[in-house]
Amino acid sequence: MNKRPALRFEVEAQDGEARAGVLTTRRGPIETPVFMPVGTAGTVKGIRFEELESSDLDARIILGNTYHLWLRPGIDVIKSAGGLHRFIGWDRTLLTDSGGFQVWSLGALRKITEEGTEFKSHLDGSPRFLSPAVSMEIQAALGSDIVMVFDECAPGKGSHEQTERSMQLSTRWAQRSKITFDRLQTDGADTGRVPEAGGLSGCQALFGIVQGAGHLDLRRQSLEQTVEIGFDGYAIGGLSVGEEKSLMFEVIDEIAPKMPKDSARYLMGVGTPEDLVESVARGVDMFDCVLPTRNGRTGQAFTSRGKLNIKNAQWAQDNRPLDESCPCSVCRRHTRAYLRHLYMSGEMLASILLTHHNLAFFLDTMRGVRQSIRSGDFPKFRREFTERLSANGE
Amino acid sequence: MNKRPALRFEVEAQDGEARAGVLTTRRGPIETPVFMPVGTAGTVKGIRFEELESSDLDARIILGNTYHLWLRPGIDVIKSAGGLHRFIGWDRTLLTDSGGFQVWSLGALRKITEEGTEFKSHLDGSPRFLSPAVSMEIQAALGSDIVMVFDECAPGKGSHEQTERSMQLSTRWAQRSKITFDRLQTDGADTGRVPEAGGLSGCQALFGIVQGAGHLDLRRQSLEQTVEIGFDGYAIGGLSVGEEKSLMFEVIDEIAPKMPKDSARYLMGVGTPEDLVESVARGVDMFDCVLPTRNGRTGQAFTSRGKLNIKNAQWAQDNRPLDESCPCSVCRRHTRAYLRHLYMSGEMLASILLTHHNLAFFLDTMRGVRQSIRSGDFPKFRREFTERLSANGE
Repeated sequence: MNKRPALRFEVEAQDGEARAGVLTTRRGPIETPVFMPVGTAGTVKGIRFEELESSDLDARIILGNTYHLWLRPGIDVIKSAGGLHRFIGWDRTLLTDSGGFQVWSLGALRKITEEGTEFKSHLDGSPRFLSPAVSMEIQAALGSDIVMVFDECAPGKGSHEQTERSMQLSTRWAQRSKITFDRLQTDGADTGRVPEAGGLSGCQALFGIVQGAGHLDLRRQSLEQTVEIGFDGYAIGGLSVGEEKSLMFEVIDEIAPKMPKDSARYLMGVGTPEDLVESVARGVDMFDCVLPTRNGRTGQAFTSRGKLNIKNAQWAQDNRPLDESCPCSVCRRHTRAYLRHLYMSGEMLASILLTHHNLAFFLDTMRGVRQSIRSGDFPKFRREFTERLSANGE
Repeated sequence: MNKRPALRFEVEAQDGEARAGVLTTRRGPIETPVFMPVGTAGTVKGIRFEELESSDLDARIILGNTYHLWLRPGIDVIKSAGGLHRFIGWDRTLLTDSGGFQVWSLGALRKITEEGTEFKSHLDGSPRFLSPAVSMEIQAALGSDIVMVFDECAPGKGSHEQTERSMQLSTRWAQRSKITFDRLQTDGADTGRVPEAGGLSGCQALFGIVQGAGHLDLRRQSLEQTVEIGFDGYAIGGLSVGEEKSLMFEVIDEIAPKMPKDSARYLMGVGTPEDLVESVARGVDMFDCVLPTRNGRTGQAFTSRGKLNIKNAQWAQDNRPLDESCPCSVCRRHTRAYLRHLYMSGEMLASILLTHHNLAFFLDTMRGVRQSIRSGDFPKFRREFTERLSANGE
């Protein structure tokens, strides 16, 4: 392959294992460490794109789910709009997952073979087949800026033998993903080309995924094999799927610092604000998680002093903002009493406002982390952040 | 009473019966004709206050429902926040209804006597009592800028005798409302005082309501009695409650032009964009209706070419905006195909975006009406607006 890189990553500052960098895609620069809001079905639930772009949030990259978008509205619809960016109206960077994790979550509804995964759609029960080649083709049609390889997520508590079999399958699927991906890039099947991308190729980037569950030797082997294939960036998959938190950090401790230093490191599906800060301390650059949006819809706010359940009667006449040290538009304007009233009344605005605040908190936290790494104060930031979180958490 | 008026109204231009004016409350000027979004439970459903204030919508006045706010979160909670404006975070004008209409809607759950209405809360079945005095006290505690008298809404198809009895009761309740209102204003029970209101009194304004269902003689009598009592503005109540549309316009035709020329005329609970334009043509200045918000949540968009049901399969790959001549942020950014996908996927963003567009359409329509009255082109505007609405309406 002669193509120029579709993505650049530069580490600007390092404090211990923690890194502050810039990930540049064809859509523009993204400061890291970065939290990526999850836009499952082409929308980050409960929030308008204008808000994601606002200075309050300023999300530079969001996620789309291949599985969900493939089933609904379907690739034809998205192609006819000119790709996912145009379909949803988002000009910034989009990362799409491969569908592997969603298919794996279907449990009994799926059957995994060497070729790929047969499963039944959760929407209408229709039979479907997803494989490395199909996933790459879908993601090319979506025109996302960062594509993930199609992998199998091993169960958190599988035996060494089971996990090894699964991990080796993931490696073979990663190889097959890369072959199809490279062909599609050359053929120009990507609907999301940006000819003006200048120094970048105008094509998509592909990330590999390290698997191996909680078995450190398998994790190391998976990392080696994945780097051997060679990708534009590297992810740690198969964590935060029910394993003990201590095991999760053991894996990150072991793997993150060994990942290529000149590539972005993405911890998939993690986590709480503490998880994010602790993982940055171990060398991770990128995160995605549904917590801020999902918990926002169920009445839980993340604040600098811990979690706050807006349903609690104690907030009924509390005229303070959700988080007294948060500068977001929700905290500037609305009180706990009002938000509780909205939630108890089943008003959509409760979800909208809590989602906004939660995303602001996650994104601000990452900006604070980044700043502290650049100024060499990350250990202090980490200590104070963690202490504050337990101040009056519920 | 020596108090200065809490509200000013001036007609700036007139074209036939249609009037363009300015209604000034202690919160600022409101250009009329004006559409008021309905904020039932302290929120205009599905939309943030920032959006209501944005240039897209620029709503100068919204409604709150006394009945709903009284039952939940309760007046104590709102008082502890310093009134409804502070509780919800809205600095512009608020009009509250009296609770009369909601109580009337409860049907079998209520019992009306000379004193007031006994009913059971729709939330927990607890017994409640609402009367002119209670409604005025609640509205004073809410601190709304415009208070409505407590009335009884007569059934749309009642006999002349029934309707007359109901109308006479409403008149007596209007007198009692005014007595309590005046005392509360003097006593300063209003929590929403704005000392900086300058030329205005810093107190609340009170509107009377003309009843009489579809009986024109009773409507005339009600108007006479209401004007005799004397209010800061006058409303037409009891329309759009199931009667024929032709009867509604008969009543408006008969009553609106006879209402005091130097006071604002408010048609309660009406209506579609056509209804608004046709009522302005008959001399009405103010409107409120749940249509743009409620229909937004059920997938119906109001456009300059008629209604559009976003669920229809014909929009699945339609990459045009909802309304090609609408300048709102939703129409600038999103396609019918995307909005349909969101709606079919049960995504909250569908409701958020359709509500925004619908409100923009209603508010823009009123701005267009106002402009045409000022330039003497209202008949042309009315004709063209009506013709366009049937262009490709569903």
